[in-house]
Amino acid sequence: MAKNSTTREENYSQWYNDIVKNADLAENSSVRGCMVIKPYGYAIWEKVQSSLDKMFKDTGHVNAYFPLFIPKSFFSREASHVEGFAKECAVVTHYRLKNAEDGSGVVVDPEAKLEEELIVRPTSETIIWNTYKNWIQSYRDLPILCNQWANVVRWEMRTRLFLRTAEFLWQEGHTAHATREEAVAETERMLHVYADFVENFMAIPVVKGVKSPNERFAGALDTYCIEALMQDGKALQAGTSHFLGQNFAKAFDVKFLNKDNQLEYVWATSWGVSTRLIGALIMTHSDDHGLVLPPKLAPTQVVVIPIYKTDEQRQAIADKVASLVQELKALNITVKFDDDDTKRSGWKFNEYEQKGVPVRVAIGPRDLENNQAEVARRDTLEKENVSFDGLAAYIQKLLVDIQNNLFQKALSFRETHTYKADTWEEFVDLLDNKPGFVYAHWDGTAETEEKIKELAKATIRCIPFNNPQEEGKCILTGKPSTQRVLFARAY
Amino acid sequence: MAKNSTTREENYSQWYNDIVKNADLAENSSVRGCMVIKPYGYAIWEKVQSSLDKMFKDTGHVNAYFPLFIPKSFFSREASHVEGFAKECAVVTHYRLKNAEDGSGVVVDPEAKLEEELIVRPTSETIIWNTYKNWIQSYRDLPILCNQWANVVRWEMRTRLFLRTAEFLWQEGHTAHATREEAVAETERMLHVYADFVENFMAIPVVKGVKSPNERFAGALDTYCIEALMQDGKALQAGTSHFLGQNFAKAFDVKFLNKDNQLEYVWATSWGVSTRLIGALIMTHSDDHGLVLPPKLAPTQVVVIPIYKTDEQRQAIADKVASLVQELKALNITVKFDDDDTKRSGWKFNEYEQKGVPVRVAIGPRDLENNQAEVARRDTLEKENVSFDGLAAYIQKLLVDIQNNLFQKALSFRETHTYKADTWEEFVDLLDNKPGFVYAHWDGTAETEEKIKELAKATIRCIPFNNPQEEGKCILTGKPSTQRVLFARAY
Repeated sequence: MAKNSTTREENYSQWYNDIVKNADLAENSSVRGCMVIKPYGYAIWEKVQSSLDKMFKDTGHVNAYFPLFIPKSFFSREASHVEGFAKECAVVTHYRLKNAEDGSGVVVDPEAKLEEELIVRPTSETIIWNTYKNWIQSYRDLPILCNQWANVVRWEMRTRLFLRTAEFLWQEGHTAHATREEAVAETERMLHVYADFVENFMAIPVVKGVKSPNERFAGALDTYCIEALMQDGKALQAGTSHFLGQNFAKAFDVKFLNKDNQLEYVWATSWGVSTRLIGALIMTHSDDHGLVLPPKLAPTQVVVIPIYKTDEQRQAIADKVASLVQELKALNITVKFDDDDTKRSGWKFNEYEQKGVPVRVAIGPRDLENNQAEVARRDTLEKENVSFDGLAAYIQKLLVDIQNNLFQKALSFRETHTYKADTWEEFVDLLDNKPGFVYAHWDGTAETEEKIKELAKATIRCIPFNNPQEEGKCILTGKPSTQRVLFARAY
Repeated sequence: MAKNSTTREENYSQWYNDIVKNADLAENSSVRGCMVIKPYGYAIWEKVQSSLDKMFKDTGHVNAYFPLFIPKSFFSREASHVEGFAKECAVVTHYRLKNAEDGSGVVVDPEAKLEEELIVRPTSETIIWNTYKNWIQSYRDLPILCNQWANVVRWEMRTRLFLRTAEFLWQEGHTAHATREEAVAETERMLHVYADFVENFMAIPVVKGVKSPNERFAGALDTYCIEALMQDGKALQAGTSHFLGQNFAKAFDVKFLNKDNQLEYVWATSWGVSTRLIGALIMTHSDDHGLVLPPKLAPTQVVVIPIYKTDEQRQAIADKVASLVQELKALNITVKFDDDDTKRSGWKFNEYEQKGVPVRVAIGPRDLENNQAEVARRDTLEKENVSFDGLAAYIQKLLVDIQNNLFQKALSFRETHTYKADTWEEFVDLLDNKPGFVYAHWDGTAETEEKIKELAKATIRCIPFNNPQEEGKCILTGKPSTQRVLFARAY
């Protein structure tokens, strides 16, 4: 059994990098902080996209496309948005190059300076609400339920493939509503869509909740989020859905005539998930042998590898496999028969293990004699000899089992790594020595939250929905508190 | 029957703008030259994407994603590429904003100047070949058959929605091969894929051919193209496929060990189509009533409109329609039952006509009595009463008819607008008074081509594949020529 170059135990961070590299998912480019998403990594993203896109459409949303560039002045319009956001970003100042006079190549043409600089979008609330202004006159024009699949740029200083990159791919939903209630309901609806996707497709259990004011999106009245726990005990925010109130409508003067013929500001939401999800996927399921993929997001769900010495054996296996491949395809299972003659089967076993293909079927001459195949599942690494009779149905069921098992395994990991802390010492000791989710009392003030972040490097991940109310004392200040909130160190 | 605001006769250019506006396809944004693609326009683009993406995958290609930004110095590496290309583009010079000291908003932080400017990709050959350098060592690593769906930016001075915008969406294929023959075969294969898509999905007939050296892509040894004819007699280049030889491999030092264990430069192709195709779609099929869409690319293929006065009638129609909708969906036909009570049926007729929905089914109380519906086809505007028995099958066949009819109509338009010119006077007279495709002799020199462009505003669109050889004299210089080439004024 091949091993990933580095184990989690040895060096978690290097283990992650090795998985990304060995599974051929992505790599750094020559442009600082920007990644190249390689075909195998991109195929996973395509699966994420198509599944989510269907869920968005099933909930009444449509896709559209808004400009990559945002005029600089737009950011100043919503005060807290610019404060919290727009500082680290790519700024376009010129629109032309010219040949260098000394023949050394091209230089920026100083004549071609823009009157107003353009910002490469870090998020699109401003340009979209500036557009919605022209789309909305009356309550009949509402709701607007748009989503955009796009690239965005945030000039991050420290980057990690998928987890934090200067350019990343995402979707951003931007909706406009006639009432506060409708906008709040949409904010919640989309958080549930995200949770549904992350749990049922990515097999990652999440805690749904609301961010503390400090952790809100810049410009939002409320930020809902889903929080997942990685294998190193750190939290990862897997998706956010923002109730923006009337902030952007006021900033861009977007009013509508309501049913009573009165002018009102429009209510807004925005919500997004990004290629960061691939990072969460890797860190939740993978092991010391490489990537592990849940079947619903695996570009190849089943690989069939022939083991042979002679051409005659090879042909006999190919004949036997042909009908299996047909049957699997008929069951909508993605299968690859790898009969590449230039690679040895041991190399192939290693390759598909590192790439996280959920099911491997190996067939040799003796298997043919016995009318069976060796079926290996990537999640548990268990192998079994299975009769060819009913093999396709067996694999179909196995894929469901693997999907469920990965979720259950991640869930039980989370359960065994979720703690309660009642004192500061306990709190810090847990974070240092048993990293995970820590439920603890907090006095509800921004100052205390900041202080905790400073002292313990832990943040409030969320205040879970339907959080049990319980009398207690803030772990830092000892002041009274009515509920525990979810703390963790986080990506 | 409602009319588009402007007819083709009155003002072709305004007619185009009105179609885009009235069908709700796109609009200009506040960022110069950048468009907002509205949901209905984007839905058409999604159809284009998914059809093409399948064709790319069926021919062995995979998707990947490369950075938005390209270091400025990369453009200088391939001499003819930078000459022909990279001048008009968006240049990122800074990576941070800061609060203005006078509190007036945000300003660019002069401290955050990039050491080397980044160019927003106008096309990605350079960054991709810089990446391929690390992917390719031996012939075993070849071919690489990657495609990217992305946004690109070219700082165009005069822009038109879809046809020419500063930012546009496209796909760009970039392949790497061990031999010249393989790369040439790939260049041809993808041109045929484009022609297949444009003819069979978009219902636009194209001429396939090769560009004259003057019109080649900057850095290519050969550019193949498909050329379509618009209703105003102007040509539109609908897709290009480039044989790049070893130019980019040499510029980025990409070599491989061949089977004889010798180092060789890698052979390259690139090929792309863009949101410009939507412009071609509009201009090929639409009429003075609005947009006309071929069924294969229509987001909604069939709209069903109830006509009623009483609630009872409305309910009776809804009951009758329910099973029709089910039957159509079972046939994979996209159908919308528009029973919106706040809009009148006349408004709806107009709306769907302007949006080019291929088939409209209207049902009133009398139709119910007669067990029939009124079926109108958007391409010919013909209406017919059709019995409910077998209506779904009737519509299915009608959609095929419409798809074929649109192609045939466009083909016969092209045929009646394709001419031969044997003298300069004839040539200019045709272009001025009977605009269309003009086949004429050319002496084969770049100078003459330039001169013709200057004098007649017409360019060589292509030298068609399998072009008949024929002795003749150049329309401008009278020098001997062995074949006619395809001229036109063009978008």
